[in-house]
Amino acid sequence: MVFDPQDNIFLLAGPVKIHPRVLKAMNTPSLGHRSPEFTEVNKELRELTQYLFQTKNDVAILTGSGTAGMDAAMANLLNKGEKALTINGGKFGERMGQLAKLYGECIELTYPWGSPPDLGQIEEVLSKEDIKVVAFTHNETSTGLTNPLPEISKICQKHGALLVVDGITSVGGIDVPVDKLKIDICITGSQKCIAAPAGLALLSVSEKALEAMHEKKTYYLNLKKHVEKLRDGQTPYTPSVHLHLALLEALRILKEEGLENRIKRTAKIAEACRAAAEAMNLELLPDKKYASNTVTAIKYPKGIEDKDIRGFIKKEFGIILAGSQAPHKGEFFRIGHMGLVQFREILAAFGALEVAFAKAGWKFEKGSAVATIEEHMLKSI
Amino acid sequence: MVFDPQDNIFLLAGPVKIHPRVLKAMNTPSLGHRSPEFTEVNKELRELTQYLFQTKNDVAILTGSGTAGMDAAMANLLNKGEKALTINGGKFGERMGQLAKLYGECIELTYPWGSPPDLGQIEEVLSKEDIKVVAFTHNETSTGLTNPLPEISKICQKHGALLVVDGITSVGGIDVPVDKLKIDICITGSQKCIAAPAGLALLSVSEKALEAMHEKKTYYLNLKKHVEKLRDGQTPYTPSVHLHLALLEALRILKEEGLENRIKRTAKIAEACRAAAEAMNLELLPDKKYASNTVTAIKYPKGIEDKDIRGFIKKEFGIILAGSQAPHKGEFFRIGHMGLVQFREILAAFGALEVAFAKAGWKFEKGSAVATIEEHMLKSI
Repeated sequence: MVFDPQDNIFLLAGPVKIHPRVLKAMNTPSLGHRSPEFTEVNKELRELTQYLFQTKNDVAILTGSGTAGMDAAMANLLNKGEKALTINGGKFGERMGQLAKLYGECIELTYPWGSPPDLGQIEEVLSKEDIKVVAFTHNETSTGLTNPLPEISKICQKHGALLVVDGITSVGGIDVPVDKLKIDICITGSQKCIAAPAGLALLSVSEKALEAMHEKKTYYLNLKKHVEKLRDGQTPYTPSVHLHLALLEALRILKEEGLENRIKRTAKIAEACRAAAEAMNLELLPDKKYASNTVTAIKYPKGIEDKDIRGFIKKEFGIILAGSQAPHKGEFFRIGHMGLVQFREILAAFGALEVAFAKAGWKFEKGSAVATIEEHMLKSI
Repeated sequence: MVFDPQDNIFLLAGPVKIHPRVLKAMNTPSLGHRSPEFTEVNKELRELTQYLFQTKNDVAILTGSGTAGMDAAMANLLNKGEKALTINGGKFGERMGQLAKLYGECIELTYPWGSPPDLGQIEEVLSKEDIKVVAFTHNETSTGLTNPLPEISKICQKHGALLVVDGITSVGGIDVPVDKLKIDICITGSQKCIAAPAGLALLSVSEKALEAMHEKKTYYLNLKKHVEKLRDGQTPYTPSVHLHLALLEALRILKEEGLENRIKRTAKIAEACRAAAEAMNLELLPDKKYASNTVTAIKYPKGIEDKDIRGFIKKEFGIILAGSQAPHKGEFFRIGHMGLVQFREILAAFGALEVAFAKAGWKFEKGSAVATIEEHMLKSI
């Protein structure tokens, strides 16, 4: 059967499945972005985004991808001669480093894909160097690894550096208490744990970050301007009204479930995925201690090819998983289980994976992955 | 009656009314931006955007507002020490100047709102100064004035300067033949004459512009990267898949009507609006010779207040018109008639305007505006 965009099981590491209520919210023929009606939308978004980020800070909403959000954070904070410390353990940590190098100076700590950073090394750099910004990707989507945010925050506070966290695939799925961890800028994207369409970047911005920003450097990505305008329920430039309406509905759904509940549910599903992989004699890419609760990355055993697994289950069963990105293309696959993903989808995905791996000649006890998930389902009630 | 976002006559100067087919195209629960299905979307978008801009040049599509597009053009082309000539005759021409000043040097020619630029003055600056970029807003949305693009293009070609045109409220509604007029970068927005939701900036980019761009300056707004990726049906960062699907459907609708037909229809409606205003003894803001075919700006006579006209017809009749922006707030109002706007909406709007102006004590022959539009309707068949 050919893949049907309207009817499938969709488990990418973002974009993710969108609730019909959210799609319905976009079914609006017209609404002016300077109208009182849209100001009300922005006001409700302010409350809901502060709830999402667990913060009293301002939260800017930019029409653009998560990368636009990362760009805005780094462009406004860094100038030539100012140093950032970044952690490169995957594609998005690498991107943070590229941004730091573009706008300022960068000390980049590099680790193999799937390995956590060395906290001692971070501490050492911050002791020796004058670091203005520590910027890293909390949940490394490309490798399924969650970096130790509370520990890095502690080191950062000790040395007085600004803390910029790419929480694009963590905020709303893994606990990211912005105020408690004193995160100066935390970035997320609409199409990940929030489960809205792609196209909006959300940034919580502390007073300290606002004060440290450079004037007259950016225009569209001028974070200070975005923050100031949103305080009046406005945006400096035309926002994507339809995406804002979708975001609003997705955040309402998140609040109905409760942030804490969603984080717990996401964790339980992740645990089941990891156990199911183990039952199939498959290895996770990251150290299990650091394995992400929103994305599970599973290595292909030698001789098993991506097209025989991912390609096969897309084509035959209409189930979409994520592959691995360059320079590790074809080495592992990823299951996104953030946002609205439930046990039922994971059950179907592992059933299909069992069929595909068995067909490809991989040895494991048939039915074991699905049985493992069933056990977790029963425990979760 | 309270304003209903789902049921009204919507005549802003963008965003504009969206066709149900376009809204339906967004009703898709999930589609990966690296999927073969989305690559096909990008390929069809490439053909349709080249049709829209009347060009063989690459057309980049950025997730962001029209201002993001203007920013991308100027940030990539201008460095300190390089000069741009800009035309400030309204809010958006002013914005182009702000961008030029931010990234390079700027010679800004300023004219009162509603007045066209002095072509002799442009010629003089280009003769005397080393200008890298001439950048201006083709259709000044804030004043309802269309700047003389073919004439400015001619001067520009004579002196070998790069030509950057903000065509945000002209492309798709007023003739902007990019290749014929040798426009190096032409920018438009999704929510204007194309009649899709806001959130995408479209930029046609010439080879000459690509060669003149600075390396290692921008990240998210790196136009060269966007152009190169789109040649393979890809985007460098996560695009707003849903907005791309909406744009695709809106461009299909535009092509079904035919670009030339849409431009002609838009012109006929604009002509009727201008004649109807005259019938009500109202004055246009711009010189009639330069009056825009996509936005009609009409001055309030002394003593007539914005709230008694625009506020009244929104509240009582569910018809939305645009006001005027700072520093000319309350001095005039604007009727957007781009995209899918037809005679029927203009008819309703002028009927309501007759009621409002009469109630506010303005003297004119009752029924004359609507009768004028009816004459134009008959002529248009």
